[in-house]
Amino acid sequence: MHAHGYATHSATEALGPFDFERREPRPQDVAIEIQYCGICHSDIHTARSEWGKTHYPFVPGHEIVGRVTAVGSEVTRFKAGDLVGVGCLVDSCGHCESCNEGLEQYCENGWTGTYGSEDKIGGTPHTHTFGGYSDRITVDEHFVLSIPENLDPAAAAPLLCAGITTYSPLKHWKVGAGQKVGVIGLGGLGHMGVKFARAMGAHVVMITTSPGKAADAEKLGAHEVLISKDAEAMQAAMGSFDFLLNTIPVGHDVDPYMNLLKRDGAMVIVGAVEPLTRVNGVPFIFKRRTMAGSLIGGLPETQEMLDFCGEHNIVCDIEMIDMRDVNAAYDRTVKGDVKYRFVIDMATLKNGAA
Amino acid sequence: MHAHGYATHSATEALGPFDFERREPRPQDVAIEIQYCGICHSDIHTARSEWGKTHYPFVPGHEIVGRVTAVGSEVTRFKAGDLVGVGCLVDSCGHCESCNEGLEQYCENGWTGTYGSEDKIGGTPHTHTFGGYSDRITVDEHFVLSIPENLDPAAAAPLLCAGITTYSPLKHWKVGAGQKVGVIGLGGLGHMGVKFARAMGAHVVMITTSPGKAADAEKLGAHEVLISKDAEAMQAAMGSFDFLLNTIPVGHDVDPYMNLLKRDGAMVIVGAVEPLTRVNGVPFIFKRRTMAGSLIGGLPETQEMLDFCGEHNIVCDIEMIDMRDVNAAYDRTVKGDVKYRFVIDMATLKNGAA
Repeated sequence: MHAHGYATHSATEALGPFDFERREPRPQDVAIEIQYCGICHSDIHTARSEWGKTHYPFVPGHEIVGRVTAVGSEVTRFKAGDLVGVGCLVDSCGHCESCNEGLEQYCENGWTGTYGSEDKIGGTPHTHTFGGYSDRITVDEHFVLSIPENLDPAAAAPLLCAGITTYSPLKHWKVGAGQKVGVIGLGGLGHMGVKFARAMGAHVVMITTSPGKAADAEKLGAHEVLISKDAEAMQAAMGSFDFLLNTIPVGHDVDPYMNLLKRDGAMVIVGAVEPLTRVNGVPFIFKRRTMAGSLIGGLPETQEMLDFCGEHNIVCDIEMIDMRDVNAAYDRTVKGDVKYRFVIDMATLKNGAA
Repeated sequence: MHAHGYATHSATEALGPFDFERREPRPQDVAIEIQYCGICHSDIHTARSEWGKTHYPFVPGHEIVGRVTAVGSEVTRFKAGDLVGVGCLVDSCGHCESCNEGLEQYCENGWTGTYGSEDKIGGTPHTHTFGGYSDRITVDEHFVLSIPENLDPAAAAPLLCAGITTYSPLKHWKVGAGQKVGVIGLGGLGHMGVKFARAMGAHVVMITTSPGKAADAEKLGAHEVLISKDAEAMQAAMGSFDFLLNTIPVGHDVDPYMNLLKRDGAMVIVGAVEPLTRVNGVPFIFKRRTMAGSLIGGLPETQEMLDFCGEHNIVCDIEMIDMRDVNAAYDRTVKGDVKYRFVIDMATLKNGAA
């Protein structure tokens, strides 16, 4: 099955047109025509080999929305024409404890990422998976999600990564009414964290370094804004939060945030895969506080999140771009110059490739 | 009420005989003749002003066991002759959320430590509380614990701090049968962690830097010993623990221990009040692991722990000393040369003072 997309061939090269093969659908597979694909910061890190050595050629993209074009004979949940999504995972072992619990993102035997992972299924001349910056994809039914038809499909695309990454910890730590919840960092993840925490009934505080983001945060649903560089405001807020969703994508000082939590409060890190600094035992011990991490979400919870979005009319705030503008969008993403997620209109792929 | 004990008068001075006043029992107070008092490393840190500026003269000691000599008219739980204990707390606000839940150690308005805290009750010429290295103490009934009569009272003394500090997190995080539990560090806290985790039905692994401690750990109840300096053994144990009780009393690298936890596993820090190093987001995010802290325990849970000890015949392994040898015992404690807790025989106070 011929596919066409955008790839890069080294850590320093720009993305450009690329032809490759997708596997023919197996009985359990769904063939999808991709309509939209979000740009996640992980795409950039991987394209540039910033998270270990990337296998090239590399086609990014794991916030995929499209229409089903064909299904294998054993597929029961989808039919041609359905609006569907694919997120960060396209395969897992299917039989470990985590997979059995629907937590495929913690598969004990290693899940297969939508891009850049060794492809254990095969059926193509390629050794590694290619992502969603392309016209089509073939995915095992288990890893295909149903997108509620009432949602704007372009704005729904980033739900598949930014959405589930923030929804999952809020649900797992039982965020809800009567709680004061802080969302740290206003970017692709943070803006979804605010929307979800608000929809779950919490009192939501956007915690950001930038006073300039206050108005936007309130538009997104934050009840309050706390400027983390304002020492007096941080002091006044000490010990007042039930839960903190920490979306900061880089290493950072932990103590100032831990001190914001009440006794038994939890801060969950979803962005920082770099060393954390200023981590003292005292704020943990003296209020029995918790710091944890959380990785995207399993397939059942991702579907639950999408249904929740359908019910509450939640989508991402996006800026739509043409495929040919992806490299400029990468540069703007690195600078934080996007509100709050770029989404590639895959209909422009032909133009971009021209 | 005249009292006699041992105090230090500066951060650099040795402890020596000291006379002072205890308050006359109020209606809610219990007067106690102290028989034994454990030596906690916190005593030394505070005596030496290593945790902020200590108020001198300073009488340490918060692992107190003795007999009731008199009770106030409103006291209902104790009578003269009862074997009782006093731990780290002698007062708290009594009306905040934490106090209402019996978690006085997290009192929102600041609890009063058994030593070195501003004394909000008064009734003496002294501004700060004096601890258990002395012949008697007057304590509000709420902060007095009942010691099961079947326990060796000297060996029960360190239960009041080392015991509850390790029991509380094991209970709060629901450690029990079917779980693999690691106790990191074999000292005063660690040796109690092993005993409790074993009594709660867990499979217990002592995690220590010292191969020389293996035999002792097994005697204490550990099923296995993991040497944390053995890179191969640490690698083999990755992802295998449900819970880690981290008793390391100083700053240390966190990553190697976090990696030992299963998905959703928790490591609880009870000792380190210094900056933690090598704390990366990755081990947290990729297995939804948790790091938390825990501080001693509330009064109801401390009584529960003592009753548990009575039922399971659990006491501390101690080395009894005379009061006059306290300074040498401090030096040995700092060097880790004690199995596993010094306890002062208060009957020797008169001799020591001579």
